[in-house]
Amino acid sequence: MIKVGVVGFGYWGPNLVRNCVEHDDIEVVRVCDMDAQRLKGVTRRYPNIQTTTSFDDLLKDDIDAVIIATPVATHARLAKKAFLAGKHVLLEKPIAASLQEAQELVDLSRKAGKVLMVDHVFVYTPAVKKIKDICRAGQLGDIIYFDAVRTNLGAFQKDVNVIWDLAVHDVSIMQFILGQKPTSCSATGLSYFGNHLESIAYMTLFFPSNVIAHFHLSWASPVKVRTILLGGDKKMILYDDTQASEKIKIYDKGIDVVSKEKLHDLYVSYRSGDVVSPKLENTEALKFMCDDFVRAITTNTAPISDGVFSLDVIKVLEAASLSIKKRGQEIPIL
Amino acid sequence: MIKVGVVGFGYWGPNLVRNCVEHDDIEVVRVCDMDAQRLKGVTRRYPNIQTTTSFDDLLKDDIDAVIIATPVATHARLAKKAFLAGKHVLLEKPIAASLQEAQELVDLSRKAGKVLMVDHVFVYTPAVKKIKDICRAGQLGDIIYFDAVRTNLGAFQKDVNVIWDLAVHDVSIMQFILGQKPTSCSATGLSYFGNHLESIAYMTLFFPSNVIAHFHLSWASPVKVRTILLGGDKKMILYDDTQASEKIKIYDKGIDVVSKEKLHDLYVSYRSGDVVSPKLENTEALKFMCDDFVRAITTNTAPISDGVFSLDVIKVLEAASLSIKKRGQEIPIL
Amino acid sequence: MIKVGVVGFGYWGPNLVRNCVEHDDIEVVRVCDMDAQRLKGVTRRYPNIQTTTSFDDLLKDDIDAVIIATPVATHARLAKKAFLAGKHVLLEKPIAASLQEAQELVDLSRKAGKVLMVDHVFVYTPAVKKIKDICRAGQLGDIIYFDAVRTNLGAFQKDVNVIWDLAVHDVSIMQFILGQKPTSCSATGLSYFGNHLESIAYMTLFFPSNVIAHFHLSWASPVKVRTILLGGDKKMILYDDTQASEKIKIYDKGIDVVSKEKLHDLYVSYRSGDVVSPKLENTEALKFMCDDFVRAITTNTAPISDGVFSLDVIKVLEAASLSIKKRGQEIPIL
Amino acid sequence: MIKVGVVGFGYWGPNLVRNCVEHDDIEVVRVCDMDAQRLKGVTRRYPNIQTTTSFDDLLKDDIDAVIIATPVATHARLAKKAFLAGKHVLLEKPIAASLQEAQELVDLSRKAGKVLMVDHVFVYTPAVKKIKDICRAGQLGDIIYFDAVRTNLGAFQKDVNVIWDLAVHDVSIMQFILGQKPTSCSATGLSYFGNHLESIAYMTLFFPSNVIAHFHLSWASPVKVRTILLGGDKKMILYDDTQASEKIKIYDKGIDVVSKEKLHDLYVSYRSGDVVSPKLENTEALKFMCDDFVRAITTNTAPISDGVFSLDVIKVLEAASLSIKKRGQEIPIL
Repeated sequence: MIKVGVVGFGYWGPNLVRNCVEHDDIEVVRVCDMDAQRLKGVTRRYPNIQTTTSFDDLLKDDIDAVIIATPVATHARLAKKAFLAGKHVLLEKPIAASLQEAQELVDLSRKAGKVLMVDHVFVYTPAVKKIKDICRAGQLGDIIYFDAVRTNLGAFQKDVNVIWDLAVHDVSIMQFILGQKPTSCSATGLSYFGNHLESIAYMTLFFPSNVIAHFHLSWASPVKVRTILLGGDKKMILYDDTQASEKIKIYDKGIDVVSKEKLHDLYVSYRSGDVVSPKLENTEALKFMCDDFVRAITTNTAPISDGVFSLDVIKVLEAASLSIKKRGQEIPIL
Repeated sequence: MIKVGVVGFGYWGPNLVRNCVEHDDIEVVRVCDMDAQRLKGVTRRYPNIQTTTSFDDLLKDDIDAVIIATPVATHARLAKKAFLAGKHVLLEKPIAASLQEAQELVDLSRKAGKVLMVDHVFVYTPAVKKIKDICRAGQLGDIIYFDAVRTNLGAFQKDVNVIWDLAVHDVSIMQFILGQKPTSCSATGLSYFGNHLESIAYMTLFFPSNVIAHFHLSWASPVKVRTILLGGDKKMILYDDTQASEKIKIYDKGIDVVSKEKLHDLYVSYRSGDVVSPKLENTEALKFMCDDFVRAITTNTAPISDGVFSLDVIKVLEAASLSIKKRGQEIPIL
Repeated sequence: MIKVGVVGFGYWGPNLVRNCVEHDDIEVVRVCDMDAQRLKGVTRRYPNIQTTTSFDDLLKDDIDAVIIATPVATHARLAKKAFLAGKHVLLEKPIAASLQEAQELVDLSRKAGKVLMVDHVFVYTPAVKKIKDICRAGQLGDIIYFDAVRTNLGAFQKDVNVIWDLAVHDVSIMQFILGQKPTSCSATGLSYFGNHLESIAYMTLFFPSNVIAHFHLSWASPVKVRTILLGGDKKMILYDDTQASEKIKIYDKGIDVVSKEKLHDLYVSYRSGDVVSPKLENTEALKFMCDDFVRAITTNTAPISDGVFSLDVIKVLEAASLSIKKRGQEIPIL
Repeated sequence: MIKVGVVGFGYWGPNLVRNCVEHDDIEVVRVCDMDAQRLKGVTRRYPNIQTTTSFDDLLKDDIDAVIIATPVATHARLAKKAFLAGKHVLLEKPIAASLQEAQELVDLSRKAGKVLMVDHVFVYTPAVKKIKDICRAGQLGDIIYFDAVRTNLGAFQKDVNVIWDLAVHDVSIMQFILGQKPTSCSATGLSYFGNHLESIAYMTLFFPSNVIAHFHLSWASPVKVRTILLGGDKKMILYDDTQASEKIKIYDKGIDVVSKEKLHDLYVSYRSGDVVSPKLENTEALKFMCDDFVRAITTNTAPISDGVFSLDVIKVLEAASLSIKKRGQEIPIL
């Protein structure tokens, strides 16, 4: 049984607490929030969970791990304290407000020998897990491209651009599925309100291999789109997250090079077979994330979305934001 | 009655001949093709139309205009002869094999005082005409963005990349609807078969105004997509060309800046009203193109898709192809 | 402020309590349930609401109305007691277990001069309200037909057939929109498990006018369908409740009789214009139902889904169930 | 090589001639039509095919079979002559204007020992053939229900109701797939223009087994629907003919009776697995129909849509039309 303390009971915290409470191997010992009113909500729903407004008090508890769901600006400070107190840490995404802070947390977790996990919840959805399984089994063949579209009307953010708000999801999915790190980025975008924060963005990632990944993000589309297209040389997948059923379709479609004597003389043929929508598990993604957190702590291994994973996501977002300012110029991702 | 001669009776020529024959104001005097077998097909279907394998013979006919539907490499040579013979010219797209040839044809047509038209047939479809009308009437307000996706599996070309093959359509539509010329371009792409011809491409166009246009082109998608999203600050349009009905949807959706005292302090609100699918005319686009050709000749004015229009399309395609090789670097469009 | 007591805190009761609590003009004084465990749930969520396991105690409270969300077999007994105690009554659907009981309740409410309302929640949805408004405004012209499909896989009931389970929704919507009472019924169906309870049913209703209404109900369909098609001689509506947006489409389509000299000599023409998806309110249907309950009590007028309305729904279900056993024979609806 | 003569070169005749001409094993010797103008169209397209305005002349040719695509009122007379002249016969649907005529043709073909085939072209489509194969292979288990919807706006017929016009397709598909003959019918409908010809109809067919088949036909729907739902106790199929791709979906969904000690005590569970869209052949249905005609003649066996098959379709249409007049009363199908 992993004993945890949770900091932050605002928008996302209640979901984390609920999933931990319902988890067989997790016990929520205490919830911390600076707002006493919110803590009353904790007590009403979970009379057995203690509350506090002091993070230091929380750290004095007999707990194994701290779950941090506070504003991003506070992540680094709270997580450092938790590592120094010998606790494992699960952070709400993004990991930190800057690359430097993120790198420090990764280093600290290593030094402390404690798990650092970040809540990239999309990589724990049944759909993304299924796609990963299909790729791992080689069904798609070699991956050729990854194409993500995430658009909607609304939810303009005041402090981050659409890349930081939306691409964070798709880049984490891309990293998880492809298992490759991009080397550079070209991005363009539109800052609609003249406040230097893009509300529409297009981003291409280049890889050491011939793979290409593209992301279309928008807060200004009249229609909600959430699709990922994954092309392999054997099969291709369309993942449409707005569908209530048949979210994933596997197309037995492909292109075969029949002959290619000279460079400009290639002849290709097209294959088109069945389309399959595999059944997906009906489990909440946060449940799987909690499983992975427990597993990481008890086996002392890295969770899927560990600190390094999350750091890599941020590197992409930073490079893309810079490339947009340079109107598409290729920016290396270190 | 405009008397025309047609050169080239291969893939697209028969459609042009059929539309001209059915047009009230056009008479097809002769069809020219180097393949005598194809000319037999002309005679069987249209006993009154004369045939020849000699383009020079065709030019000697009592005709007002020449319609050229031959391979692009021959466009410049045939069109020049036609202008020198005092004929108006309608060319199958693209206008020519290079910018220089295209520019020469534009100059020649001006010197000859004859119409030079290029068959960008998409700008004559009922759907695109309707969108243009809606924009012109100010229903969308100021245009913010133009986003086109044209993907499918197949039809790999051996001699041009996917930009030249597919973007030519969407760029012509964009030019017609926006009525603005882009100033530069950033594009990325993937040459799947290592033959230096991209089969997947993403292209962003920048404008003097704050508008952005993006194009996603692919020969390697398992699903056929043909959408254009057009965002204005009053309304937005989704044009889905794969739909049998309701191809166009006008969304009464928008974003209003409610207050903006400081740069990072803006507050926006979202509007969401009715969705309308306007009825579209049920007329073949080629019919409208023939109308425009006749009108241009008889009134001595420029058709919508005249030589300059077509030259502008090619400038975009060339800049994009260059930007792809430079991994997204911004390339000016002169 | 209307003071209410609620009986039954099982599946639907909590939704009713929540909506009443959030309603400006309703105060929930007490909740009654025979299961003391459930009452603990009430106290935890709503510390100010009293609880009891005795319905008689509830009736002794200073309340204006009783909301009954208990199993249908208990409806008549509890509602009678409430009327005798001088309370208004809101019943979960269906109103009662038999036509006779339902008729008694209608009579009792009249004698007591108290409101009898039944929770046909679909007639209070924004979509159905919008359709009713469109019809009332004459936009559709004369209604020609009503066609409802409600299918899914699952939720087989052990004690009622698919007509009682699913058609109850669509018949209530039909009654509300058409404002006409059917005079007879022809229905067919399939009792898949040989237990005499149909899991698939088709039902046609006949009206004094030339209108026809048809209902397709199924627990055995692989796809979830929830559509209502409403045809008028001016316009037609498609209502697709499974859509997240654009639930309603108004088609400016119709058939005009151009000439009709003799019976077999009619000539018709088709009209096809724009399609409009009107914006719908974003309010929970139960909120509107509570509004109507309050309005009915305070103005002493009938709510939309009063006892007579609900009785008429049951008459249709009974006739249909009988017609199915007679393989489609027309059964009068009294 | 089967030598054929074709009578009737109006709406459907040209399709039949084109398919026969392109068929490896069929030679079209002569086309007959009373309209000399139409025959010119034959000569222009097929210079090698002879023409005549006299059916008797056609019968004197050295031909094996006659293909009749004339108005239905002439079918019986022409087919009789053809059988008497010792020819095989392929008739455009419906086979004849009455049950009696149809029966006579069936008898005549038997007496003459010649093939009588009717052009129920839907049973030769790749989609329907695929569904039949899936059923035959036992993938669906026992069939529970067949549900067809065929609606659109328009194409009102002056001389037949919507059952004869549209249900003829779905009933032929149902017969082919189920391989069972219905024993009775209950149908309802609406004669919109008061001319006694229904433009909307609903039809239920009963079978000796527990299967049920239902058909919804309409000329008065704002949306075009062409679906067939086929439910088995193992799997279910949705066939949507309006889809450009993925016309057929096989749902691994079903209902299992887990326990059923007493009649009202059954407990069922739902299965829900993958969805598969099998690839379909890309061949024109008429090609397959011609194949079957040739096969039937050369092997002296019955084609799929022989005279008896077509007679059975008509029996259903007649019973349904009668049941509509009796407002749903069950009518036996002999």
